[in-house]
Amino acid sequence: MEYFPFLEEVKFSPGDRDGLYNFSFYNPEQQIAGKNMSEHLRFSVALWHSFLDGGDDPFGEKTLVREWNEIGDDLQKAKLRIDAAFEFMDKLNIQYFCFHDMDLVPSSPNLKIFNDKFDRVAEYLQKKMSKHDKNLLWGTANLFQASYYRQGAATAANPDVFARAAAQVKKALEVTDDLEGDNFVIWGGREGYDSLLNTDMKLDLDNKARFLEMIVDYCKEIGFTGNLLIEPKPMEPRKHLYDFDAAHTHAFLENYGLKEHFKLNIEANHATLAGHNFAHELRYSRIHDMLGSVDANQGDKLLGWDTDEFTSDIYKATLACYELLENGGIAPGGLNFDAKLRRTSTNIEDLVIAHISAMDVYACGLKAAYNLQEDEVLQKFIEQKYEGYSQGIGQQIKQGQTSLEGLEDYVLNNELTKVESDRQELLEKRITEKIIETVQEGL
Amino acid sequence: MEYFPFLEEVKFSPGDRDGLYNFSFYNPEQQIAGKNMSEHLRFSVALWHSFLDGGDDPFGEKTLVREWNEIGDDLQKAKLRIDAAFEFMDKLNIQYFCFHDMDLVPSSPNLKIFNDKFDRVAEYLQKKMSKHDKNLLWGTANLFQASYYRQGAATAANPDVFARAAAQVKKALEVTDDLEGDNFVIWGGREGYDSLLNTDMKLDLDNKARFLEMIVDYCKEIGFTGNLLIEPKPMEPRKHLYDFDAAHTHAFLENYGLKEHFKLNIEANHATLAGHNFAHELRYSRIHDMLGSVDANQGDKLLGWDTDEFTSDIYKATLACYELLENGGIAPGGLNFDAKLRRTSTNIEDLVIAHISAMDVYACGLKAAYNLQEDEVLQKFIEQKYEGYSQGIGQQIKQGQTSLEGLEDYVLNNELTKVESDRQELLEKRITEKIIETVQEGL
Amino acid sequence: MEYFPFLEEVKFSPGDRDGLYNFSFYNPEQQIAGKNMSEHLRFSVALWHSFLDGGDDPFGEKTLVREWNEIGDDLQKAKLRIDAAFEFMDKLNIQYFCFHDMDLVPSSPNLKIFNDKFDRVAEYLQKKMSKHDKNLLWGTANLFQASYYRQGAATAANPDVFARAAAQVKKALEVTDDLEGDNFVIWGGREGYDSLLNTDMKLDLDNKARFLEMIVDYCKEIGFTGNLLIEPKPMEPRKHLYDFDAAHTHAFLENYGLKEHFKLNIEANHATLAGHNFAHELRYSRIHDMLGSVDANQGDKLLGWDTDEFTSDIYKATLACYELLENGGIAPGGLNFDAKLRRTSTNIEDLVIAHISAMDVYACGLKAAYNLQEDEVLQKFIEQKYEGYSQGIGQQIKQGQTSLEGLEDYVLNNELTKVESDRQELLEKRITEKIIETVQEGL
Amino acid sequence: MEYFPFLEEVKFSPGDRDGLYNFSFYNPEQQIAGKNMSEHLRFSVALWHSFLDGGDDPFGEKTLVREWNEIGDDLQKAKLRIDAAFEFMDKLNIQYFCFHDMDLVPSSPNLKIFNDKFDRVAEYLQKKMSKHDKNLLWGTANLFQASYYRQGAATAANPDVFARAAAQVKKALEVTDDLEGDNFVIWGGREGYDSLLNTDMKLDLDNKARFLEMIVDYCKEIGFTGNLLIEPKPMEPRKHLYDFDAAHTHAFLENYGLKEHFKLNIEANHATLAGHNFAHELRYSRIHDMLGSVDANQGDKLLGWDTDEFTSDIYKATLACYELLENGGIAPGGLNFDAKLRRTSTNIEDLVIAHISAMDVYACGLKAAYNLQEDEVLQKFIEQKYEGYSQGIGQQIKQGQTSLEGLEDYVLNNELTKVESDRQELLEKRITEKIIETVQEGL
Repeated sequence: MEYFPFLEEVKFSPGDRDGLYNFSFYNPEQQIAGKNMSEHLRFSVALWHSFLDGGDDPFGEKTLVREWNEIGDDLQKAKLRIDAAFEFMDKLNIQYFCFHDMDLVPSSPNLKIFNDKFDRVAEYLQKKMSKHDKNLLWGTANLFQASYYRQGAATAANPDVFARAAAQVKKALEVTDDLEGDNFVIWGGREGYDSLLNTDMKLDLDNKARFLEMIVDYCKEIGFTGNLLIEPKPMEPRKHLYDFDAAHTHAFLENYGLKEHFKLNIEANHATLAGHNFAHELRYSRIHDMLGSVDANQGDKLLGWDTDEFTSDIYKATLACYELLENGGIAPGGLNFDAKLRRTSTNIEDLVIAHISAMDVYACGLKAAYNLQEDEVLQKFIEQKYEGYSQGIGQQIKQGQTSLEGLEDYVLNNELTKVESDRQELLEKRITEKIIETVQEGL
Repeated sequence: MEYFPFLEEVKFSPGDRDGLYNFSFYNPEQQIAGKNMSEHLRFSVALWHSFLDGGDDPFGEKTLVREWNEIGDDLQKAKLRIDAAFEFMDKLNIQYFCFHDMDLVPSSPNLKIFNDKFDRVAEYLQKKMSKHDKNLLWGTANLFQASYYRQGAATAANPDVFARAAAQVKKALEVTDDLEGDNFVIWGGREGYDSLLNTDMKLDLDNKARFLEMIVDYCKEIGFTGNLLIEPKPMEPRKHLYDFDAAHTHAFLENYGLKEHFKLNIEANHATLAGHNFAHELRYSRIHDMLGSVDANQGDKLLGWDTDEFTSDIYKATLACYELLENGGIAPGGLNFDAKLRRTSTNIEDLVIAHISAMDVYACGLKAAYNLQEDEVLQKFIEQKYEGYSQGIGQQIKQGQTSLEGLEDYVLNNELTKVESDRQELLEKRITEKIIETVQEGL
Repeated sequence: MEYFPFLEEVKFSPGDRDGLYNFSFYNPEQQIAGKNMSEHLRFSVALWHSFLDGGDDPFGEKTLVREWNEIGDDLQKAKLRIDAAFEFMDKLNIQYFCFHDMDLVPSSPNLKIFNDKFDRVAEYLQKKMSKHDKNLLWGTANLFQASYYRQGAATAANPDVFARAAAQVKKALEVTDDLEGDNFVIWGGREGYDSLLNTDMKLDLDNKARFLEMIVDYCKEIGFTGNLLIEPKPMEPRKHLYDFDAAHTHAFLENYGLKEHFKLNIEANHATLAGHNFAHELRYSRIHDMLGSVDANQGDKLLGWDTDEFTSDIYKATLACYELLENGGIAPGGLNFDAKLRRTSTNIEDLVIAHISAMDVYACGLKAAYNLQEDEVLQKFIEQKYEGYSQGIGQQIKQGQTSLEGLEDYVLNNELTKVESDRQELLEKRITEKIIETVQEGL
Repeated sequence: MEYFPFLEEVKFSPGDRDGLYNFSFYNPEQQIAGKNMSEHLRFSVALWHSFLDGGDDPFGEKTLVREWNEIGDDLQKAKLRIDAAFEFMDKLNIQYFCFHDMDLVPSSPNLKIFNDKFDRVAEYLQKKMSKHDKNLLWGTANLFQASYYRQGAATAANPDVFARAAAQVKKALEVTDDLEGDNFVIWGGREGYDSLLNTDMKLDLDNKARFLEMIVDYCKEIGFTGNLLIEPKPMEPRKHLYDFDAAHTHAFLENYGLKEHFKLNIEANHATLAGHNFAHELRYSRIHDMLGSVDANQGDKLLGWDTDEFTSDIYKATLACYELLENGGIAPGGLNFDAKLRRTSTNIEDLVIAHISAMDVYACGLKAAYNLQEDEVLQKFIEQKYEGYSQGIGQQIKQGQTSLEGLEDYVLNNELTKVESDRQELLEKRITEKIIETVQEGL
């Protein structure tokens, strides 16, 4: 069965202004800095938002009806969903996908039944991956949706729930390993609290650390060598989530001696909910050697919840890609479209268009970021700005050769040199110019 | 000269409903859990907000005119300001005060002149402290107001500015030490960025760490044994401040091996600007052994800047005091009123009333928190909630005796036990009841 | 069948500190300003949140399982739900309730079937009301949940949807009229937009006005004399809702000449989402003669969505009740508990406790507000503050006897008199004192 | 004296990628829809932010030192400031400017002195305008900075302050009239409250209306025929400002019968502080025939205060210009750069670059918006979406020929037709494509 009959393979065809279904910037084979664009960007489809989401919200019922979710039993639906996703990936030239266990198998109170079904779907998935030559960017276990996870999974007050979560991660990890997934993600969507009054924060964090340690141990045991990624989010569904942002997660990992084992999966919308720019979270992760992968969506800064929109802002994509390039690339991570259609966008065509648009925005952003990096616009400015630290008193400071006394002495004997302009407006203009230049070169 | 001639010593006089100038709850000598209320609360006056603030805002000029800031040269003004503050502390029965160097000496480009003036004011201050039997809760260096700190102090791009900041801290630390200050605070009001485009975040953080190391070294050298406190704030005046909140600061300290040397000065309004409750930041600091002192103000959650209001919310004060009691007290820290009058509150009486009101709110909060702790309302609930971890599989998890495999095995062989109600509404009711009970006992 | 077997009638029993199920402040028969407390507060149970909500959130499945929602077909469930609600109202001494049509009858594509079922449930409801002597505060039509309302109801782009909404309101209005409801509420939960790009805002507003006109006409026709109430909310579920807040709704009603026909149903949590305090929205409505009824919940100002929590803040309840008293009461409106349990509060007891607690908080708030009003604390301050407008140039301004020229002349010939202190901290202290006094009198 | 000696006339020179001081998109003479770009955009310099701002913030002293503000007495400074501004306007080819009275004359307690000085500066200004052939977009009176305005100007509790504000507006209006200003702006920066406790909101609003009535009367008297504009802002400096946003101001004007006399000056940053997009406020104003002029800046949505940044976002500029084109243009209003440099941008060159950049962003946005309008991309979609209202039942609804009964009848006899996709992602893609196309055509 064909789910996107209206769609042929989407091609790089920048001159074509009338067609909806082509790329203006995304040219998978184009070389940038010695790598294909596709290797740089490593786009990934999110099985949940793109193939399971029904468009329901807290005030409204399902609006998005998909053939593949309507026919047969759970197993059959899972297979049809996979079929649809792989047709989609083929036609859009997307190499990677990501899944939660529960995107493939519905929750079941009985773990054995759940695991058995999971095995059968995984087997089917493996065949499809092989046939379509697709890869798994990451797998994860959904530890937030089932009723029993309402007080947390690794931070559940009931140890049975902790155990259940552990068993569920074990299975999802095995499947991810079997499918040669590049990463395994842990999003602690219920690890946090609704009220401090009923919460033992210390025990919660201790238990969370124990949970992660077991995962590290089991990875060694089964030989899973992909990256383990933690995905920060500040709040929603709960009042406070322990992995609030990159720095909170960093503090936690340092505190429990776990930093070397985990990297971060940074989501744009989660960054803004935490009060940060997307680029900030990427930068923080990058300079602390914690940048693992990216959930490439965007939020609405005027709304206080996770809107998970498809990216449409070239400026932000450029700044994000700049961080990725400075990081030496995002592999073995990738850019996963953890984004959903608005619930009023009910056409199946909308799903295609949203992905094409976001892929083009990131492709343009990558090119612009590369141009920025090549011309050393920012780098030169920053070098010059901080050059005082490569000589004289600055160098001594940097090399740890000074003390408060020595610096007081320096100050008493030297005039304060001029503090130069930080030239923010100029640099912002440079970014805009570089994007414009990139767009014009795209002709 | 008397600055508050309308005011006699403010006394604990709970029955007196007509008088404005008495305490309804704050009874300094009252014993609570073996300590005086005054020892518990360790109230402190903030020289800047209470004795220097002119009420100007970004759109309006000075509204608060104080005699002690209007007469004579800088030195004389500083002395009058100190006189006023000590009269105020005497009459309100406040034992502690806090200062920035620039509350005492105006900024000067010439460090020598600045230090000399500072010495003279410090000498005067010391005499007053001795005479009035008052103590210094903490001193700090103002590293944000001078024009040359606009790009940071420890994170300045210009090493001369770093040096200047170091020299300034050295002096402020020496004075704090001379005055036997219990703590020294570092607020990095300009340590952050306005734009990532012109910022080397890694170098900034490295430099910030070097700066702190020098402070630690110098404390050893001069034998300053008070606590060194970092005060987190997420933003304002800059777009992003590196000490965003307790967890960000924690991550930074862990990353640079500095955690043992610093504790935190938690400010209520800064907590809410970072998206947290005041109690959250206290709890986080407490369980990570980082709770040093408290800036006891409140913000307006509907406004996005630092309003620094006097506390008027008994509920929040109760939850804050509960964390302090669980911490075994806040000493050698204290409750510093880092709060200012609204700029429309132009009467000198308003300053008195604001302090009396906030002191009473905290005194009531302390009593209520103590009653909560005594009755073990929250403690018992939490113990029961998490009791699964003191036996069976929970105990094994806690003792690190389980693995993903072991837990999978457990799940396959055991039914999931019931997840109990978290009873948030009940506990919130209990808090309200305990406050009401405390208020009624106050009769 | 008894749904709350553990519960006897909840009584006013202020001395009883051990019992969970009694009122400390709410004494229905107590006279305040010549009216019973129950007449003042006119508490109402919300059928949806209290008897239908399953605790599901965007990331998690149902957690709250209620007997009355689990047995039989739709009709039977509706009857059991009503039974449970009336047992609850009886035991808690709550006189009023509110409903959406879809709380009683599930959505059906076929209007005839829907209306028939609705009639049968309404008939049952009427008998119960009569038997238990309960009243309907307001009814409403749910115009947001069904998939076809996703682009709006009165502002739907498809006129069939407009028609459907109109027909649904007609029926809900008739039932409300039959049950002698005091009010009929219109919440435009989908009247707004997700994006301006696909929105004809002018046509939307015109259509919304036409919709309201038809309702006004039909009320006249059937003789419904209750108040028509619009409930403002700024956003969620959509990016922007046209009835953003009281002032937006006011502008709309004025613009279309509809102001005389509608009042407002002010919800606390909606007020804060719009950037206002609850008291602000009450005040705005009151002075514009638009205060109709109240949804008495509270939000979490650190979270950006509608948390619909039970009120636990006596301070806010006092300020809200003060506005109600200044309004000469809220009747024929009331205080509807549009609040839900946290999804982790899974005990049926939690539902009872949450209501008792909120009722007590409002009862205490009412008493404190009455004491404030009696003592004229605020009134006297405000009279004095603005007294300049009752004499001299102020009086001339007020009476419209001045012009820019006349005032220039006045300024040139008169010194500016002193601007007095606004004494915010003093008034806040007075509020706290009045609450404390009220609590103590409650002994 | 030349203040920008490094700068020649800035020219449209799109190919020049190396030069900093040229326009890539802004070509004043270019015809768009029968008008010059300069006539479309009507750029205006803000005397305050661009020529007076010192870069001080609540935590830091002045950083921006400008020659023209440092030499001579107030009068001389004002003249130098005007000289600098006119040199700037000449070189950047900006036709308009805006001022507050206090940008020209410092506040004085004595009105006569103030007015006399104002006359002398105005005389100088008039000569300069004539010589340089420049126009005044709008003048305004600063009713927020002086200490005596701290409780409001038109809403001051002290009628002397009301009178002072009236006299000040009279003079500013006369000068604006003399200089043939196109508009006069009223920003009620202190018309609001810090606390409801000490506020008589009703009297405040009544007084505000009286104040506006006097202004209307005086305009008639002196024959000022420019537009009177109110500038909404939700908060800051006070907790709540009465002109919160466009709709609040609309409600106020309708309520007092003043709507015909006032239009709005919409500021981008104020829109976002109120929880709206810039385009939303423009749209709301436009469809209510209230769009008067624009303050073209941008805020930082992660910061809760008015950052007044120069616009750098082509996407937002395009959507704003689209509203202006749909409005039939913004004249006699204009695009005033109510934006300031970051306080770390201390070079005089930064001021030039910030303006060039913002002008280019708006020029590009105008072209893209025009292309959008020409291709009818959005218009056609919207027409099709709502076409149901031009026939059948939709037409009857629109023409007021239906009732609830008629519509119920319709529903009972007709199947609900399909609700079509709202295609938000497609339209967002179209916007991006149109911008890209515009940028590429710019080659």
